[in-house]
Amino acid sequence: MEQMEYRTDLAVEYTEESTHRREEQGEYAITRLTHAGRRYVTVETPPFSDAADAEELAELLAGELRKLLPEEGPVLVAGLGNRFVTPDALGPRMADRVLATRHIGGELARVSGLDGLRPVAVLAPGVLGSTGVESGEVVAALTAALHPAAVIAVDALAARSLSRLGCTVQLTDAGISPGEGVGNRRPALSWESLGAPVIALGVPTVVDAAALAAGLMGGDPPSEAVAPRGAAMIVTPREIDLLVDRAARVLAMAVNRALNPDLSQEDFARLVS
Amino acid sequence: MEQMEYRTDLAVEYTEESTHRREEQGEYAITRLTHAGRRYVTVETPPFSDAADAEELAELLAGELRKLLPEEGPVLVAGLGNRFVTPDALGPRMADRVLATRHIGGELARVSGLDGLRPVAVLAPGVLGSTGVESGEVVAALTAALHPAAVIAVDALAARSLSRLGCTVQLTDAGISPGEGVGNRRPALSWESLGAPVIALGVPTVVDAAALAAGLMGGDPPSEAVAPRGAAMIVTPREIDLLVDRAARVLAMAVNRALNPDLSQEDFARLVS
Amino acid sequence: MEQMEYRTDLAVEYTEESTHRREEQGEYAITRLTHAGRRYVTVETPPFSDAADAEELAELLAGELRKLLPEEGPVLVAGLGNRFVTPDALGPRMADRVLATRHIGGELARVSGLDGLRPVAVLAPGVLGSTGVESGEVVAALTAALHPAAVIAVDALAARSLSRLGCTVQLTDAGISPGEGVGNRRPALSWESLGAPVIALGVPTVVDAAALAAGLMGGDPPSEAVAPRGAAMIVTPREIDLLVDRAARVLAMAVNRALNPDLSQEDFARLVS
Amino acid sequence: MEQMEYRTDLAVEYTEESTHRREEQGEYAITRLTHAGRRYVTVETPPFSDAADAEELAELLAGELRKLLPEEGPVLVAGLGNRFVTPDALGPRMADRVLATRHIGGELARVSGLDGLRPVAVLAPGVLGSTGVESGEVVAALTAALHPAAVIAVDALAARSLSRLGCTVQLTDAGISPGEGVGNRRPALSWESLGAPVIALGVPTVVDAAALAAGLMGGDPPSEAVAPRGAAMIVTPREIDLLVDRAARVLAMAVNRALNPDLSQEDFARLVS
Repeated sequence: MEQMEYRTDLAVEYTEESTHRREEQGEYAITRLTHAGRRYVTVETPPFSDAADAEELAELLAGELRKLLPEEGPVLVAGLGNRFVTPDALGPRMADRVLATRHIGGELARVSGLDGLRPVAVLAPGVLGSTGVESGEVVAALTAALHPAAVIAVDALAARSLSRLGCTVQLTDAGISPGEGVGNRRPALSWESLGAPVIALGVPTVVDAAALAAGLMGGDPPSEAVAPRGAAMIVTPREIDLLVDRAARVLAMAVNRALNPDLSQEDFARLVS
Repeated sequence: MEQMEYRTDLAVEYTEESTHRREEQGEYAITRLTHAGRRYVTVETPPFSDAADAEELAELLAGELRKLLPEEGPVLVAGLGNRFVTPDALGPRMADRVLATRHIGGELARVSGLDGLRPVAVLAPGVLGSTGVESGEVVAALTAALHPAAVIAVDALAARSLSRLGCTVQLTDAGISPGEGVGNRRPALSWESLGAPVIALGVPTVVDAAALAAGLMGGDPPSEAVAPRGAAMIVTPREIDLLVDRAARVLAMAVNRALNPDLSQEDFARLVS
Repeated sequence: MEQMEYRTDLAVEYTEESTHRREEQGEYAITRLTHAGRRYVTVETPPFSDAADAEELAELLAGELRKLLPEEGPVLVAGLGNRFVTPDALGPRMADRVLATRHIGGELARVSGLDGLRPVAVLAPGVLGSTGVESGEVVAALTAALHPAAVIAVDALAARSLSRLGCTVQLTDAGISPGEGVGNRRPALSWESLGAPVIALGVPTVVDAAALAAGLMGGDPPSEAVAPRGAAMIVTPREIDLLVDRAARVLAMAVNRALNPDLSQEDFARLVS
Repeated sequence: MEQMEYRTDLAVEYTEESTHRREEQGEYAITRLTHAGRRYVTVETPPFSDAADAEELAELLAGELRKLLPEEGPVLVAGLGNRFVTPDALGPRMADRVLATRHIGGELARVSGLDGLRPVAVLAPGVLGSTGVESGEVVAALTAALHPAAVIAVDALAARSLSRLGCTVQLTDAGISPGEGVGNRRPALSWESLGAPVIALGVPTVVDAAALAAGLMGGDPPSEAVAPRGAAMIVTPREIDLLVDRAARVLAMAVNRALNPDLSQEDFARLVS
């Protein structure tokens, strides 16, 4: 009997370990791999909920992100997911903390020392059930209107292994694939669909209960035991609210610093309320 | 010496009273007027914060709204303003409670009795300072992508008279004019800018402190007294949080019922979490 | 080798099934049992997140609650748990929706038709990590000051079986036992500790990942697989935010109606913003 | 004809200027005065919403607070006001950010380097309309149970002058007087009512519309103009949400540093999520 393929959004979980190139950097481990012609960078960190050194992690992520981005040109940052569902709220909460700069210009910018910034637009497109519009359609409409040189899409991810939750960040130039993301609800966000490079950033916040059970039992669990009455069950750290809050802050700072490195972390902390 | 023109978004305050046609309907008073070729309907109600009969008011507003809308075709509902600034949060909070239906179709719709609905898309475009994009640009991009038959834009308004706060609703087919809205920050949303009719709905939530002072003193107040160090001061009811919450609910229900009258208020209450 | 005892707060899960008395009431099933001299009533419902008929369920729960309460005298309602951790927020969110009446009296009460109400005080005592005070100490201090005839304590619970999540309500006159509750963090709330009867109400919102694994594997799971680096992992429905929100509303309405049956559900909806 | 006395909670506004002792400290001005045998310290700062140097201000306030506090012994911190009404939410939001330490002890404290801390308990007692209990009764009940050496009470204040809003902090050993505070709703919190010294901290967030009008007109304004239908109207900075958020952070840090100066601002930022 064939085993079900349990869903994961982490390339380190669904690709051959032999293709992974791993390096240590202080308390971080970085795994690089190429899959279907796209680059994936996975950073393992101490748990976000401990938050020992958020500043150092933000710098490391900013550095990796810069390697995936075009060197110049305006950028559209999209925080995907549902603001009102905690494990899915990573994208919108990140978006709240990214400094929009596209509208800052002219005399005001010069006076406040904010001239010469890379133009950044920020968007939380919401989810299909609330808006009636696929988040991919919203991002595509904005991309067509704003002509960014790249799109950065941030989303909560699903993992297969509990040990990945809250201590892993994935960056990729592959965009977002259909079926990825916690809510399992969105169309592709890719070069093909948008006409611009899409850099995706994510942190796994959940494991499907069925995937956990299958991993433990070495086979498919009875569906009623892991999804009673068809209700999807997820596994998260008890401190999921703290995890999502801290991950959103770190990713936002990484995006801020990658896009406008002339401003310091302190500057961004002051400018983003 | 000339007197400053204090800003108001209410047509009943900036047009000649002789042009107003006023009628009473139970505890509501409705004033109709035409200005620059556009229709304005102003409904005076008991204060929202008393909320005696929200259901009746929602029906009355739904009826007025239907008269301003095209009879069929998809509609884009935009909740303007800043979710994180209470007197400006009317639009986004309204958007949270409008039922999106554009994505509901096919077998699922038939089974759940939701077929035959008018397609509705819902959007809270955020504010320029947070997104780097004018809300008008976001709405225009979505309008270009979704081709709605009409756009409904909901926004918090400024009044000149305290007695208007929390007990007035304005509906108009004029869209949103530059300089309207609490934040005084947005470009026009109009037939001209979007290529679709724009029906605007709003509730006044603030009076500028300078306008209040001028009204009381019969002349311009000393600016340091009403805007110390240039900081804009606003006057609101003490219960502004309650007012905005209840107004958002009533307007959302009016929009829901105007667009999909086959569903009852009870249906919408159940379908919108 | 002995098996670990996985924690549950549900008496129907840790007592002998032969002692349970089960009856059906429409779409609800009610199980009654006595354990250590205390009464436990467990109501099984359709999932809260479907919320077909919240009004009927609230009435059923109000009726059961009334049987456990003294017939008259002031009541202190305590919403236990952490407002900022979704699966643990049931108590505080319930407290936000219970109508406090202890301070309503005199001329004002007569004029507004609110005289003759049973005095109700409402409290969300917070959690030890945020306040430095056990929630039991806070409730005890208030009980000593206010001399209620009974305390109603509402809390999120842990279950052993996923099929209980979001479709079970437990009522008991046993109070709260040490180690109960999602956070596993509180001292007893009981007749012995407070000097007043304590009626506890709860809804299971989580299953420990270790308990799920043990149930599936028929034995203790490897601890690193279910609690990597010692981090506690929980299983919840994907729609945990919706579940907690709706359960809080239903429990609050049940408490309201049990304590002041002269007011209708509509009255309470209007009086509790 | 006699003029009404418009309410202010600021001693610098209702005492004789000749009794004020004013000193400058960099960009801050400190005014000290004694009224009815109690000390009042008023710190004028650049507007909180600019937040140039929150760290320096927190240190200055911590220093002033220490002078009003007993040198040792446990402290109860009470955040007064209504969490759900923005201009009144200063106290509860401050309480969210004060580090509770009363429960930290024993082996755990030694291991994590948190031994030797001054015991701090933190409480947000809510408001009478929501709880049915005066906040003063709640604080008194906790004071009786916990026997603190002092109580620190934080509250939003009303001023008479707009120029005070968002750039003034008042500290006093007089506690809270009846009628103080934005909601105008609470009993005294004082040595007399609690049996412990009460140090009060506050920031003015509102001016009554009537007080503003009276100040401008040099006499009582017509009541219908400033309080239509009896509805209380308040004047606040447009950026009231930002003001309250930043003031809550600064006051919390000042309280943290005053009570446990062995921990740095960085330590507190890390320990208070």
